[in-house]
Amino acid sequence: MKQTVSEELKRIFNRAPFIADLGIQLDSLGHGKCTTVLLLQPRHLQQDGYVHAGVQATMADHTAGAAAATLLQIGQIVLTAEFKINLLRAAKGDRLICRSKVLKPGKQITVVESEIFCAASETEKLVSKATVTIAVVTL
Amino acid sequence: MKQTVSEELKRIFNRAPFIADLGIQLDSLGHGKCTTVLLLQPRHLQQDGYVHAGVQATMADHTAGAAAATLLQIGQIVLTAEFKINLLRAAKGDRLICRSKVLKPGKQITVVESEIFCAASETEKLVSKATVTIAVVTL
Amino acid sequence: MKQTVSEELKRIFNRAPFIADLGIQLDSLGHGKCTTVLLLQPRHLQQDGYVHAGVQATMADHTAGAAAATLLQIGQIVLTAEFKINLLRAAKGDRLICRSKVLKPGKQITVVESEIFCAASETEKLVSKATVTIAVVTL
Amino acid sequence: MKQTVSEELKRIFNRAPFIADLGIQLDSLGHGKCTTVLLLQPRHLQQDGYVHAGVQATMADHTAGAAAATLLQIGQIVLTAEFKINLLRAAKGDRLICRSKVLKPGKQITVVESEIFCAASETEKLVSKATVTIAVVTL
Repeated sequence: MKQTVSEELKRIFNRAPFIADLGIQLDSLGHGKCTTVLLLQPRHLQQDGYVHAGVQATMADHTAGAAAATLLQIGQIVLTAEFKINLLRAAKGDRLICRSKVLKPGKQITVVESEIFCAASETEKLVSKATVTIAVVTL
Repeated sequence: MKQTVSEELKRIFNRAPFIADLGIQLDSLGHGKCTTVLLLQPRHLQQDGYVHAGVQATMADHTAGAAAATLLQIGQIVLTAEFKINLLRAAKGDRLICRSKVLKPGKQITVVESEIFCAASETEKLVSKATVTIAVVTL
Repeated sequence: MKQTVSEELKRIFNRAPFIADLGIQLDSLGHGKCTTVLLLQPRHLQQDGYVHAGVQATMADHTAGAAAATLLQIGQIVLTAEFKINLLRAAKGDRLICRSKVLKPGKQITVVESEIFCAASETEKLVSKATVTIAVVTL
Repeated sequence: MKQTVSEELKRIFNRAPFIADLGIQLDSLGHGKCTTVLLLQPRHLQQDGYVHAGVQATMADHTAGAAAATLLQIGQIVLTAEFKINLLRAAKGDRLICRSKVLKPGKQITVVESEIFCAASETEKLVSKATVTIAVVTL
């Protein structure tokens, strides 16, 4: 039996151990959109005390996949084909917010952009931006 | 006092909490080269039971940084400006091996390629490949 | 004698033979922004009658360089370190318009986004989007 | 009637006006491989007298498409989904040689790497490297 789109979205967030392990949480979902949040802990950092690029890349990729999944048809899943991320500023703060938005939906390939903001008390700064190419696979 | 290159390399592996948290270990270092290994655990996976793209991206980025750092001069550090990673095959196995090699060293920018292999018993397959653009920063 | 920023901008558009050869024209310049236009000719196409990805890449790269150059200091020039372009739709029409905008200026590295639209009579569609990493070099 | 693979390859080189216009010529074809050559002319340059990044990008993309096309089945065509190119050195010389090789073939997506060398008399230097993600489309 083929799964529904909302089942695929639940799977993406509740059955992805690495996302749970890092602490990345779903904040909101819309048509072609997804926002996630991560409360920063010391274990997320690199050698200079900034958030590791790998944490940002994980969030950019996974949130993009969820944004793409909001546009799936029954029986389809998403798989990341490739992504590129530019690290714009050293990320230091309390939490990361990732906002992903589908730039171009497609039958075989969907392109999503993810912007990651680092927030601390009153401020919120864009720290990285990714473009994610997602393969839409019919099971 | 400015730090030496080997101090920067130690820092990259011993003072990067996210790398320790994931379990990524230094395997070998050479002139413009670095290899790391990760023993896979359930927490490294995504919703389909494959290694999460974010784990691979983290390894590709960090190992590339170390490869670039082997070519630094005293008082310089490396910072990832951007990277692109192509996920070539679903990654399932016992461990990941990342082999990074400097493609072009530079005064301001060094370009590194990282290949990630997924190994299980006798087999080893290329599962992803990244190109990493690294800023060389003089402190 | 070091050249001024406006001299560098003139150089980028009047002394770049490949840009003149293709027919790419400066439309407007602002602080961290540049727009160019290309009237399409049969020679700009690929085998299926669409605008060649290389034409779009050239426009995305060159317009990004000009956008970055608006933020230079005297005696600096821009050099593209790398770029990534996603081809979103087959491009067919009368002209291409490229709008480039600096996402993050920097002392060593400036990141620019370029959006390319293909226009025909009343319509204008986003056909590709690029992220361009530009090295700022002090002569 | 569906076209054969060799027809698709001929089409890629003989029916792509932009490639003919630039002067890019097929040098050799193999299983998952393609090499092209471009004799450099003043019109291929940018404002500093080096080969324009757009010329290199065009060659990297088109040669990658041809390499991917050698692995097609009857009735399929290739379309570039995205590519990333790192400009490694200023390119100055008599000719460019582009060597493209399939890194991973796929039913929906094929990934190709293109290396561009700039040659002058006795020397040949790697000046840029691209990773090209190609959509395999069944007509």
